[in-house]
Amino acid sequence: MDITIKEAAKQLRHHDHILILSHRAPDGDTLGCAAALAMGLASLQKQVRFACSDEVPKKFADLFSEVSVFDPAQPNEDFRAGFLVSVDIAARNLFGDALSGYPDQVDLCIDHHQSNDGFARQRCLDATAAATGEIIYALLRELQVPIHSKIADCLYTAISTDTGCFKYPNTTSRTLRIAADLVDAGANAADINRRMFDTVSKARLALERLALEHLEYHFGGRCVSMDLPRALMEETGAKGSDLDGITSLPRQIEGALLGITIRERKDGGYKLSLRGQPPVDCAAVCERFGGGGHRGAAGCTFDTLPLEEVKRQILTAAGEHLLTLGLLHDAP
Amino acid sequence: MDITIKEAAKQLRHHDHILILSHRAPDGDTLGCAAALAMGLASLQKQVRFACSDEVPKKFADLFSEVSVFDPAQPNEDFRAGFLVSVDIAARNLFGDALSGYPDQVDLCIDHHQSNDGFARQRCLDATAAATGEIIYALLRELQVPIHSKIADCLYTAISTDTGCFKYPNTTSRTLRIAADLVDAGANAADINRRMFDTVSKARLALERLALEHLEYHFGGRCVSMDLPRALMEETGAKGSDLDGITSLPRQIEGALLGITIRERKDGGYKLSLRGQPPVDCAAVCERFGGGGHRGAAGCTFDTLPLEEVKRQILTAAGEHLLTLGLLHDAP
Repeated sequence: MDITIKEAAKQLRHHDHILILSHRAPDGDTLGCAAALAMGLASLQKQVRFACSDEVPKKFADLFSEVSVFDPAQPNEDFRAGFLVSVDIAARNLFGDALSGYPDQVDLCIDHHQSNDGFARQRCLDATAAATGEIIYALLRELQVPIHSKIADCLYTAISTDTGCFKYPNTTSRTLRIAADLVDAGANAADINRRMFDTVSKARLALERLALEHLEYHFGGRCVSMDLPRALMEETGAKGSDLDGITSLPRQIEGALLGITIRERKDGGYKLSLRGQPPVDCAAVCERFGGGGHRGAAGCTFDTLPLEEVKRQILTAAGEHLLTLGLLHDAP
Repeated sequence: MDITIKEAAKQLRHHDHILILSHRAPDGDTLGCAAALAMGLASLQKQVRFACSDEVPKKFADLFSEVSVFDPAQPNEDFRAGFLVSVDIAARNLFGDALSGYPDQVDLCIDHHQSNDGFARQRCLDATAAATGEIIYALLRELQVPIHSKIADCLYTAISTDTGCFKYPNTTSRTLRIAADLVDAGANAADINRRMFDTVSKARLALERLALEHLEYHFGGRCVSMDLPRALMEETGAKGSDLDGITSLPRQIEGALLGITIRERKDGGYKLSLRGQPPVDCAAVCERFGGGGHRGAAGCTFDTLPLEEVKRQILTAAGEHLLTLGLLHDAP
């Protein structure tokens, strides 16, 4: 059942033992929301715990300095959740291993993903929000929770990370106004921005340097592909988090309308990430290979074909798509 | 004489032939402000012209589609300026060659640089503004000019480029609220963001790749230096605009508090750009070599010393500075 922010606030007011859940491989939005909501509810004298299948990445650890963590593997502590809230979790399969038994127990799902699969008993969904952080902000206002600087830090982190620091097309005037309110409430925006958007690991830098040697230009530069062989990952010691955003690199190159990153998986298969700018429709290209996503970002996998054949197939599909859009007429 | 926005608006209302000047090597702020002010004044039935010593870079050309350009080399056209306004020009030496005779003729200087040297007859300065675009926005509101989408595009470009898309520490809640207003007024923020912040030239990419091979780590990684020899610039075909922001790269590396870019000039000397994060004071280090700037960003030049000696001197100064701040105690 879909409910409003007002109704969600009413329910939260009625419960005293609340467990807040974040999605696996947690990002700034799910974590910032969880920490902000936990602190906000704690200020209303609620008992609150937080749980996530995966560890909180180091760069978000500060947000949780005043939040109590619940370990689903050791549920015998003296906290019995009377109300379960998920934040920014779009689907059952995003709870992760440690919380795999939880999707059916969620009382209230707070989310901004249009694709939300409705696992929860009640859902407070706003797909126009750039981040779930916008919804949590409205909810805390509805609950008349004072937004102190620590809560402001959490929500600013949630919103800025989900919008690429207000750069992505999901950013609206409401997003910017909420960010302004959070800055006024004491969010350390400059510090958060530096840590989130202006810091790069040595492994990432090494990976980027080698990846740049694997760029290939197609169709007069309208399409750019980049290989990320396993050897390259191992050579640089790059981990998952070092890969964040590297898939947007080929599309960022001047003249490129479609960027394709081809990453070799551990098992030898290939994961393809497509990024496009209008009018290119990445999802349409990926759907031909059983994948999917959005117009601007989509993906698909090839499990058994050798790299050269993977490239041939995806580039043929990409070329046909560009041709259909009339984008190859003046290609050199 | 320093005047308020209200007074500046009053003066602009009283004049019918207005010439607007941007600084040399024009950026998004000076150009967005000039175009927005030109269109705003034109909507009040004023005759307006725009002039700049250097050509408007391609990526800003769209902003000027409805603005008439004044060529200072051919001043015999049927436009005689009755009132000269400079936007975002902080000092006399920033007018550039073609406008070198103009600083003393400026009636009104609109700027946000604390360092503004007061060349103009009157000055409307707000050093708390993240961009001169914030001041122009307030001025157009004071003039009761309707902010249509084209003006909104110009001001959004001005403000977003001067704040690194709201990422830099100069961004305030006012900055974000004005950006929200501009989005509501029809600014194509997503499109502008993609062009300004999400597009990289092939030359820049090639330069970055080679520059990454010239990184050196000092003092346990707290200081990172990067050489940009002439040969590297020539090899990649990189121009001035391809260098934008590359000086922030060494400081972005995880653990670095101070980044030093050493760029070889055409004449064989070296231009050093320092970037730091608190508590490092880049200006303090550069001042020892006759340079200057801000805490977070400063520069100095070495005209005659060989590269190795330049490095030795700047690293000695950097090390002493880090030591003074107590930042070297636990260095490996």
